[in-house]
Amino acid sequence: MKFLSFEINGQASYGLLRDGDEILDLGKRLSSSTPTLKDLIAGGELRGSAATYAAFPADHRLSDVRLLPVIPEPRTIACVGHNYEEHRLETQRDPTEHPSIFFRHPESLVGGGQALVRPIESMQLDYEGEIAVVIGKPGRRIGEAQAWDHIAGFSCFNDGSVRDWQHHTRQFGPGKNFARTAGFGPWLVTPDELPADRILELTTRVNGAVVQRATTDQMIFPIPRLVAYVSSFMTLMPGDVIVTGTPGGVGVKRNPPLWLKPGDSVEVEVSSVGLLRNPVVQEHD
Amino acid sequence: MKFLSFEINGQASYGLLRDGDEILDLGKRLSSSTPTLKDLIAGGELRGSAATYAAFPADHRLSDVRLLPVIPEPRTIACVGHNYEEHRLETQRDPTEHPSIFFRHPESLVGGGQALVRPIESMQLDYEGEIAVVIGKPGRRIGEAQAWDHIAGFSCFNDGSVRDWQHHTRQFGPGKNFARTAGFGPWLVTPDELPADRILELTTRVNGAVVQRATTDQMIFPIPRLVAYVSSFMTLMPGDVIVTGTPGGVGVKRNPPLWLKPGDSVEVEVSSVGLLRNPVVQEHD
Repeated sequence: MKFLSFEINGQASYGLLRDGDEILDLGKRLSSSTPTLKDLIAGGELRGSAATYAAFPADHRLSDVRLLPVIPEPRTIACVGHNYEEHRLETQRDPTEHPSIFFRHPESLVGGGQALVRPIESMQLDYEGEIAVVIGKPGRRIGEAQAWDHIAGFSCFNDGSVRDWQHHTRQFGPGKNFARTAGFGPWLVTPDELPADRILELTTRVNGAVVQRATTDQMIFPIPRLVAYVSSFMTLMPGDVIVTGTPGGVGVKRNPPLWLKPGDSVEVEVSSVGLLRNPVVQEHD
Repeated sequence: MKFLSFEINGQASYGLLRDGDEILDLGKRLSSSTPTLKDLIAGGELRGSAATYAAFPADHRLSDVRLLPVIPEPRTIACVGHNYEEHRLETQRDPTEHPSIFFRHPESLVGGGQALVRPIESMQLDYEGEIAVVIGKPGRRIGEAQAWDHIAGFSCFNDGSVRDWQHHTRQFGPGKNFARTAGFGPWLVTPDELPADRILELTTRVNGAVVQRATTDQMIFPIPRLVAYVSSFMTLMPGDVIVTGTPGGVGVKRNPPLWLKPGDSVEVEVSSVGLLRNPVVQEHD
């Protein structure tokens, strides 16, 4: 099953995507009980809503709506740094026993198809193709063996980074929180659509050229370990997002560096999940 | 004027503190329009509400309520590292042109008088006395000259840190986000109560002994610069919090280290603002 958050006629809603192009608008049917996709997840109603409305006619075409970030206002967006060996080496980090965690805020997100914004403060906007995990069930100190039960689904993520601001100090926050610099979408795919081995392939393209490629079995800290680690110090709640790290090939480590510029198109594709495409625009002051 | 968030009979509310001990309950009077202190700030109604209810009899005594974090659910808590020269030297950081910014989440906060929790994962719970700035007016790219106009008020903050987890990697987030490890309170003091030169004195005590002392004119990045810097990359909204950094004297840099332990009492006092006192307890598994 695929779920998405969108806007139509200026109204935010969410729904179920069927047959690649048909949207069943759940937001308008369930607005009183579960006004957002986050609420639907929290209520444990992903599967139930899909079953209830299976025979209903579609409300919209995918091309009719403006996609929002899959979860438009996550309470927590925990991002992982250096989680693929190739990227760890290119950034010259020592191996560590623990994942590196930093946080984004919702204002930094855009949905599928929406423009990533290069801010007036910097020329160094960079891509980071990643896989986002959306939490489905609350938990603190979730064991690795239980981690998959706490996951509502998966999405593509472009952890867009303003590199000079990311490296103002050792703390990454400023370069990871400029408004509208990350893509999160196009939709949420539930775990039943994953292959049995749960290995996903991640590919990032800039203007059609492949710049990053990896499979999730190359992660230094696999997804269950990330869920366990983050939930050690904070409660994970439905709709929270863990962004699982980027492979080698980021723009800042190329020679010459490959910065995103207005007019570029960036794609993050995850097998069994989907393709997130965002154009790049320049912010005007 | 002093405003606080509290719980009484299991109900969350907020109010105005008068004469040191009397609470006028604004939450119960204004629950439909402004259910939280954050909403009152966003509505620009701090001064107006104080004037409107000046002659009303008090609803509670301070000792009758359980204090909540001044803003119980801030949308953003941006914390500043190494903002006093003495602390920068003790942590052996190079001078930088930019403040170091990391983020906390609301679950990590407790109000005045509530217990700080040493988690089962660590023996290294440390204090950091700080001054919290609460934003009153939305803004992006706020100029330093305009910064004071965007501030609703000030509070004491203990940026409690689980040091071993803080240093798992270079990113501070994990050690700064364990549940109930930071104190934020006891109340918000509006800018008109500050001295004309706006210089505040910050003192931290553990079991009555002074462990940190500084004045805000010793900040490497003064408050207007912090407001300007954070708002460069993200919109600051009413109720957002900037925690302005800790002076020298933290427990981890003492010889031997001074870790907080169950039964300890930590105080963060800020002149013209108030005294935040929190006991320390051990989390039980």
